[in-house]
Amino acid sequence: MRTLTVASRRRAEMIDITAAVARAVREIGVADGACCVSVPHTTAGVTVNENADPSVREDILACLGRLAPAGAAWAHAEGNADSHIKASLVGSSASVPVAGGALVLGAWQGIFLCEFDGPRSRMVHVAVLPA
Amino acid sequence: MRTLTVASRRRAEMIDITAAVARAVREIGVADGACCVSVPHTTAGVTVNENADPSVREDILACLGRLAPAGAAWAHAEGNADSHIKASLVGSSASVPVAGGALVLGAWQGIFLCEFDGPRSRMVHVAVLPA
Amino acid sequence: MRTLTVASRRRAEMIDITAAVARAVREIGVADGACCVSVPHTTAGVTVNENADPSVREDILACLGRLAPAGAAWAHAEGNADSHIKASLVGSSASVPVAGGALVLGAWQGIFLCEFDGPRSRMVHVAVLPA
Repeated sequence: MRTLTVASRRRAEMIDITAAVARAVREIGVADGACCVSVPHTTAGVTVNENADPSVREDILACLGRLAPAGAAWAHAEGNADSHIKASLVGSSASVPVAGGALVLGAWQGIFLCEFDGPRSRMVHVAVLPA
Repeated sequence: MRTLTVASRRRAEMIDITAAVARAVREIGVADGACCVSVPHTTAGVTVNENADPSVREDILACLGRLAPAGAAWAHAEGNADSHIKASLVGSSASVPVAGGALVLGAWQGIFLCEFDGPRSRMVHVAVLPA
Repeated sequence: MRTLTVASRRRAEMIDITAAVARAVREIGVADGACCVSVPHTTAGVTVNENADPSVREDILACLGRLAPAGAAWAHAEGNADSHIKASLVGSSASVPVAGGALVLGAWQGIFLCEFDGPRSRMVHVAVLPA
């Protein structure tokens, strides 16, 4: 397992971590299997989506902000109830196949750390499971 | 890893791929572990849900259509921002246990390719990781 | 693979299964890899989120109840269409890294069975895949 450190700069942000995950997969050196990318946090998540047009990330974050509004009357009193909800909607991990020692991603796919309660420093675990 | 090809016929559609995934798992021949089913696309996803009553799929798609409406004023200008959002809500992969060389699914569970920007041809990767 | 049995007491409920999953992981005895926690049900899910303040769970369930209302005019006629939808929003499985034979969870993370159509008895499958 490798652990990446990622710094977020905004309260809600999707950060493209594809290159760092790909590097970790190469270092781990498993030829074929699947890569499990996960966060040890409860107000952040991991998703796979388009990394070409940044407006896709903007729309995902805007929609999540409407589904779980930051200012609503939540029971959790720390001001980040919406962040926890978004983490469970997106999920705390994502799986991507590995072949020939490299991530198998579609042409438009990237792996994103989803920050929902930043800015702060986050960890991302990368494990590769051989087939 | 095996890669399935699936043709969708509507813009939004949940296609039952359980039989094809089960066949791939048998061909791969791993006795015990977990199967990772994923798509290399950013406007489609994979989910596990009921495959008995088709109205369940209809309700899931209708609800997602309300959470991320196709016609809303999204930043992404290609007319499929809602499709990307739905892909991250559902997720691009699903994991199912494998025992005795077969998928371990509940009585009502099926594996679905979730098409959110069809109709088109899609790929589904199936990897089985031994325990 | 180990299978846990969990009894829910309400229609919608997030039940902390971290200790039981951790025990199963220790019994399975794989030192390093990833743990796949899944349910063989279509109206329940698995998520990783905060297990310190119970109000976080309350907010997650309240928000899901607004995104997919129980009393809406769904096509599925069994009265639990909302439960199926919530299962696909949260997902039927979650993955957590394993190191030194133990789950690698963040300080605030717990693993939850998400009951969306209880009360009833549920099963949770725990598989550990070696790295």
